[in-house]
Amino acid sequence: MQTKSKDLKKLSWEEFYNTPLDKKLSYFAENNHLFDCLFSQQFNRKNIDHIFSVATKIRTIAKSKEGLDWLQTLLSHKRAMLYFIQPSTRTFLSFQSACYILGLKVSEIRSTSTSSEAKGESLEDTVRTFSSYTDLLIMRHFEEGFAEKTAWLLNKTKRPVPIINGGSGKDQHPTQALLDLYTLNWAFNDKGGIDNKTIAMVGDLKRGRTVRSLTYLLKNYKNIKFVYISPDYLRIGEDIKHFLKKHRMKYIETDDMKKSIQDADAIYMTRIQDEYDINHESKDIDYSKFHLKKEHLKLIKKNAIIMHPLPRRDEIEHSIDNDPRAMYWRQERNGMWIRAALIAHIFRIEGSILYY
Amino acid sequence: MQTKSKDLKKLSWEEFYNTPLDKKLSYFAENNHLFDCLFSQQFNRKNIDHIFSVATKIRTIAKSKEGLDWLQTLLSHKRAMLYFIQPSTRTFLSFQSACYILGLKVSEIRSTSTSSEAKGESLEDTVRTFSSYTDLLIMRHFEEGFAEKTAWLLNKTKRPVPIINGGSGKDQHPTQALLDLYTLNWAFNDKGGIDNKTIAMVGDLKRGRTVRSLTYLLKNYKNIKFVYISPDYLRIGEDIKHFLKKHRMKYIETDDMKKSIQDADAIYMTRIQDEYDINHESKDIDYSKFHLKKEHLKLIKKNAIIMHPLPRRDEIEHSIDNDPRAMYWRQERNGMWIRAALIAHIFRIEGSILYY
Amino acid sequence: MQTKSKDLKKLSWEEFYNTPLDKKLSYFAENNHLFDCLFSQQFNRKNIDHIFSVATKIRTIAKSKEGLDWLQTLLSHKRAMLYFIQPSTRTFLSFQSACYILGLKVSEIRSTSTSSEAKGESLEDTVRTFSSYTDLLIMRHFEEGFAEKTAWLLNKTKRPVPIINGGSGKDQHPTQALLDLYTLNWAFNDKGGIDNKTIAMVGDLKRGRTVRSLTYLLKNYKNIKFVYISPDYLRIGEDIKHFLKKHRMKYIETDDMKKSIQDADAIYMTRIQDEYDINHESKDIDYSKFHLKKEHLKLIKKNAIIMHPLPRRDEIEHSIDNDPRAMYWRQERNGMWIRAALIAHIFRIEGSILYY
Repeated sequence: MQTKSKDLKKLSWEEFYNTPLDKKLSYFAENNHLFDCLFSQQFNRKNIDHIFSVATKIRTIAKSKEGLDWLQTLLSHKRAMLYFIQPSTRTFLSFQSACYILGLKVSEIRSTSTSSEAKGESLEDTVRTFSSYTDLLIMRHFEEGFAEKTAWLLNKTKRPVPIINGGSGKDQHPTQALLDLYTLNWAFNDKGGIDNKTIAMVGDLKRGRTVRSLTYLLKNYKNIKFVYISPDYLRIGEDIKHFLKKHRMKYIETDDMKKSIQDADAIYMTRIQDEYDINHESKDIDYSKFHLKKEHLKLIKKNAIIMHPLPRRDEIEHSIDNDPRAMYWRQERNGMWIRAALIAHIFRIEGSILYY
Repeated sequence: MQTKSKDLKKLSWEEFYNTPLDKKLSYFAENNHLFDCLFSQQFNRKNIDHIFSVATKIRTIAKSKEGLDWLQTLLSHKRAMLYFIQPSTRTFLSFQSACYILGLKVSEIRSTSTSSEAKGESLEDTVRTFSSYTDLLIMRHFEEGFAEKTAWLLNKTKRPVPIINGGSGKDQHPTQALLDLYTLNWAFNDKGGIDNKTIAMVGDLKRGRTVRSLTYLLKNYKNIKFVYISPDYLRIGEDIKHFLKKHRMKYIETDDMKKSIQDADAIYMTRIQDEYDINHESKDIDYSKFHLKKEHLKLIKKNAIIMHPLPRRDEIEHSIDNDPRAMYWRQERNGMWIRAALIAHIFRIEGSILYY
Repeated sequence: MQTKSKDLKKLSWEEFYNTPLDKKLSYFAENNHLFDCLFSQQFNRKNIDHIFSVATKIRTIAKSKEGLDWLQTLLSHKRAMLYFIQPSTRTFLSFQSACYILGLKVSEIRSTSTSSEAKGESLEDTVRTFSSYTDLLIMRHFEEGFAEKTAWLLNKTKRPVPIINGGSGKDQHPTQALLDLYTLNWAFNDKGGIDNKTIAMVGDLKRGRTVRSLTYLLKNYKNIKFVYISPDYLRIGEDIKHFLKKHRMKYIETDDMKKSIQDADAIYMTRIQDEYDINHESKDIDYSKFHLKKEHLKLIKKNAIIMHPLPRRDEIEHSIDNDPRAMYWRQERNGMWIRAALIAHIFRIEGSILYY
């Protein structure tokens, strides 16, 4: 049984932060409906399927000028703030575009140098200020738990606004996981859906938050097999393996990419996250063994799909882009639609959209 | 009698800048109606009361989607430029939100590094360029007199656009003063209004421009008592004292916060402005005596209100936020409404708003 | 005969880049209608006159609130990205304002530090990402050929979006040339048009891309005489002279400004572009001989016009601004109208505008 919101409100931040996730999810919801979007674990099969329907409908409506003009009336009275302190192009742009699609006005802060943090203001006061003028806060930050702390703080005030986590530290990136899943769902639509598929995840599994978040989300599907392919130093975290074992999800770990991608239905490539290096430890890793090359295309399944959260360096050879199994550009664009659907969900306007 | 605008146009910038304020206010007005908003001294009881009514009406209309959508049609044909070279979060965001509320499109410049000043362009040319593409210029700059100089320059061209001073140097910050006054007016609404009240101002009175601007504005009310509480080094400026004496306004100066806040109807706390330090002189000041702590709450009047222009450091203990007398978060949000009202006033659309 | 687009698609970037311009223009057009706007050479008398009519019509419509509100409905379903890596105020602002006038939503990137290039992403992937979320890409970059390369890349994908070159390196700046030409056309409207006029261009002709682009555009007019006035080191490039000879256009070169401006119908002043200095070579040049001073006003024709792409340093004395022949502030504002017209042209909505 979940701890009640009322009791959660009495906890200090340290106590709250260390509360197991399943005991505190109610704090970020209203009657089981998402208020804040912070963790992949907030999604279940029901709200996932619902948000996917909304995303697909928005995408269809937006094809015509009339449709897009109509969508823009839905939240024309709302203002969103994009607080993106960590460098980002695609997440920022896709959120901003998602806001534009639904008519939200957008303010942005992309550097702490222009803000009052420079004047010694506390985080508490800064985020409360953001919430004073806007109706939605979308945040990307280099600190783990930053978005959660913001939501924790605001939900104690009289005027909380929803928070969407656009990536915090090497922790989570739930909307990336959602768009990844939406892409899997789309690709496997006429192949029995996501259930029973083998998903290979390749690269820096230790620090790649997209891999972590996607794993959490896939708990909502049946009989998934995970193949975690990485250099020894960059293996998937113990917490994720604990999660997999707890939910009896099948996985193997290996460092042999060439061999282990052959049975995969989806191959999810990732970049080495050396910005999180403490002492340049990544430079001694031979990451080239975890690059997908044209020569590998003949080894993988005819129906397999190749994904990547982007940006890439050399993980996928550019010539692969033209292979019909390459799904990463579509995956990227899906980010805009799924984020628009998520915002629609949070503001409870999905009804209007689905019945358009 | 005021100098005529025609004569003022012949003055060089140095002559103009050194002209007493009351002799040049006409240069920034059209038939006694604000064209530029640069100084607190431009406000009188009549236009203050008018702008306050508009702010309150905008706030009411904005509560519904229909109302906010309607407000956004009023200036949908106008474009504003936010030129904010000095770091700022809340002033920037509240002006941007105010523009969005009235439907203005917004351009922003937040750093000189992206602009043509890097190519050796003069200030004159840069601001004239801004005015070429926009209908309203909102400026925040670290130099005293910057907004005034811009308005002086543009009012001599064939296509002037209104300037709003969003803070220039340690000089003035008139819209902050306006929102402070609006908050006082709201809080004392059922207590006989602002007249006859005792206002304590605490902290860095030497360099805090909000204190200066608010003092100027309070001249429009009867029988105000000012209590200026500060360390000796940070006492209120001689020019302000001269102003107070000239207008026979009562004030005392003290460094004993604990004692002197007890009779105040409003306690206006401020941050130490050490960004204006020349030689780190602030670090030797014991500013902790000018911090409001939970233990002080029992000393102050039951009906007193606590204000702060924000951002704060430690001037007000966070636990005070939950006291009903703490008014600074409401005060902050008021900034958005009062700025929307000011813009409405400048563009002369208050009529439509008041009769909505 | 032009090389067919199909054949052009097979070329590598190096091969494509080195293909003569007249052989590859079809790659950036659809049925002779501009798709991308990259080079001045894409304009001919027919599309120039057409775009000028649209600009003038937009300017007229925008005078009323009803008109501007109507214009904003035309592209309300489109999103533009302003990717301005090179510092710029006026080009950026005039493009942004042009987008606002037609109702486009705008995203901006003004520094590579906030983007994924920092994570080692290739140019190809970065621009393809921009194109994923937006419908129009407006770019300013310090590298020659950057906008062309972007358009080359995107036109090979399944979802190309139009590119407008807002200035790339010391190469071209076609929209600046277009606004310069529009200003000439306006000024000479009742003097027989641009044909037969003498155009003096003064200053850093070696590196000033506006001079280069304007020269290309003037090929579309009859019997223009060019007077290129510059220090020896900053003479107009050999490629431009080759172009002039090929098209039998008359020109002279000189370093005697005082003498050679006397017969000019238009005097186009330019700034020394020392940001392109390799070894501070500009500092030894006496540029003051190429400054227009008040004393020169009596030497030039009564009907001559004085132009400058701005920003200026000391090339034109400020007191000249009040002379009726000074056309540079109008020229600047024309940039907004002509850019709006160009965007309208690219999206093929000129019909609606002309018949408003």
